[in-house]
Amino acid sequence: MDRTIDWLGGAVVLIDQTLLPQREEHLRVTDVPTLVDAIGRLAVRGAPALGVAGAFGVALAAQAHDPVAERAAFRAAVATVRSARPTAVNLARGVDLALAAADDGFDAVLAAACELRDDEIAASWSMGIRGADLVGALTGPAVTAVTAMTICNTGGLACVERGTALAVIQELHERGRLTEALPLETRPLLQGGRLTTWELARMGAPHRLLVDAAAAAVIARGMVDVVLVGADRIARDGATANKIGTFALSLAAAHARVPFLVVAPESTIDPDTATGAEITIEDRAPDEVIRVRDTPIAAPATEALNPAFDVTPPELITAIVTDRRVVRFDRGERLADVEVGERRTAGAPAPRG
Amino acid sequence: MDRTIDWLGGAVVLIDQTLLPQREEHLRVTDVPTLVDAIGRLAVRGAPALGVAGAFGVALAAQAHDPVAERAAFRAAVATVRSARPTAVNLARGVDLALAAADDGFDAVLAAACELRDDEIAASWSMGIRGADLVGALTGPAVTAVTAMTICNTGGLACVERGTALAVIQELHERGRLTEALPLETRPLLQGGRLTTWELARMGAPHRLLVDAAAAAVIARGMVDVVLVGADRIARDGATANKIGTFALSLAAAHARVPFLVVAPESTIDPDTATGAEITIEDRAPDEVIRVRDTPIAAPATEALNPAFDVTPPELITAIVTDRRVVRFDRGERLADVEVGERRTAGAPAPRG
Repeated sequence: MDRTIDWLGGAVVLIDQTLLPQREEHLRVTDVPTLVDAIGRLAVRGAPALGVAGAFGVALAAQAHDPVAERAAFRAAVATVRSARPTAVNLARGVDLALAAADDGFDAVLAAACELRDDEIAASWSMGIRGADLVGALTGPAVTAVTAMTICNTGGLACVERGTALAVIQELHERGRLTEALPLETRPLLQGGRLTTWELARMGAPHRLLVDAAAAAVIARGMVDVVLVGADRIARDGATANKIGTFALSLAAAHARVPFLVVAPESTIDPDTATGAEITIEDRAPDEVIRVRDTPIAAPATEALNPAFDVTPPELITAIVTDRRVVRFDRGERLADVEVGERRTAGAPAPRG
Repeated sequence: MDRTIDWLGGAVVLIDQTLLPQREEHLRVTDVPTLVDAIGRLAVRGAPALGVAGAFGVALAAQAHDPVAERAAFRAAVATVRSARPTAVNLARGVDLALAAADDGFDAVLAAACELRDDEIAASWSMGIRGADLVGALTGPAVTAVTAMTICNTGGLACVERGTALAVIQELHERGRLTEALPLETRPLLQGGRLTTWELARMGAPHRLLVDAAAAAVIARGMVDVVLVGADRIARDGATANKIGTFALSLAAAHARVPFLVVAPESTIDPDTATGAEITIEDRAPDEVIRVRDTPIAAPATEALNPAFDVTPPELITAIVTDRRVVRFDRGERLADVEVGERRTAGAPAPRG
């Protein structure tokens, strides 16, 4: 299976990302509590993939409880899916999208979820192409190939195929315009070390892994042409909640005058959130900090402060690349001037030469 | 033994810091190659401790080969100590200081090394007191207690006793003026997670551990009153080479207008280095990045870029606190105007109330 998450034979099938890169195992999930657990322990993660997981979760709920005849039980199951991760707006949106079809029964719910999956695939192609075009425009014709830094995992694993920020890197690589990718390991859960390097190796792109703390210094040394990050939630002012460490990267990029691009599907923009100050930051368990996988790195009783996300203000973002457009903050364009609706990408991706 | 490193019964005795916090074991080193190995694998680390290790290394060499009668063998052994870590100016300085006594034989070399050890202890007291006074002056009388962020390990383990930046935190804690310390874990070798939390717990100071990538966001949220860091080498313009991640911290502190203090003995200032651009950055093995202790965090063949240090420019530093003075960059004072000589701290530390 090439897709990170899909619906196959009455079940949600997904790669268990907590086992990568050592083991590639698929989970076959047939009930809602197992899916909620998988979302909570990050077996499936990444904003677009979480949206699809949420929609498929509603399908699982509808399979277990008829949405009309067993409305209360169905709704209760759906509510547990919706609240499995508080910061990810896509999860709730995926749930709501499938839920809107609930009055027409299970088949309609599943069709809505599959449509979301297909839309996410088309969106990834669109972001990759627009992003690579923008990188070319920002670096100018003299730069034939670029070194791109990125954080966390924003590839096919975070979506359904190709991804968001990593889709741009893949597109640059396929155009022969990538010198090297510099993924950050992304503590505490090391999605960059475990997942992004695995995806870069699979696509044959040259890359070197860095600890998060090295990013700013490597940017300051002039070794990076562009920084590409994803988003978990974007406020209407452009403030972007993303994996912890993203804000630090934006400071370093601004200090060195390196373009800093947020790449995310338009569904990540939350019309109900006016500014970054309104974004709730998820504080996760200290456990993730005081050990690395099974290895303790501090005494067992050590307390930790573990914010999962940070918020990058719009003035530190060069541009936002969505599946439908590029908004150039560096040219004074504002996200607030863009009409962002529930409408999703229409049509199939452009054919590739 | 309370001291990190000492000379006892014809041997250098040091805590093996690679085993902390799980195990507290002392190495008894009687020959130069074993000491060079201990320095290389960071069993002893931190600029002042490395200086003392270098001086004791010369004593080991003088014990094995008479400095006058077996001059060539003695000098060859000393050279291996001197080059065990290229970035640490204190290591070379400790070697040179003990080496200056070589013509008077082993006893004189050992006496010089022990004098350096005693000077470092006095210097730690001095830095802690001056630093805590400065934090009080910078935060003002309305702030009765502070939250202090720090990186790497700059405590007694990095020196002989008390430390540099962590000596300031210890002093604040002992004065009842520390709300909380926020140590960063400091990938790749996790000195903050393994060592600083161990020292903070031992001194009874409240603390929470953070991943390095969380630092900037936590500072931006207004949760930090002062950032305190050590230094491996300070250029005459004030540019400071320190553990990778320090530069990123300085950017975040400047962005949030939080004081950023470098705390280091005056011996860390390198009179032969005019600016930060002249500081050679040590790139260490990829191995440290692709695994955490014994746990792999990326596929085995993954390449890595692993700069051990970065350079923070003087314009991002509020002040430098040494064992002899405070240089307030924020008030236009310049390190270049200060006469920095080989003279070290004289006299014993002030008695404590």
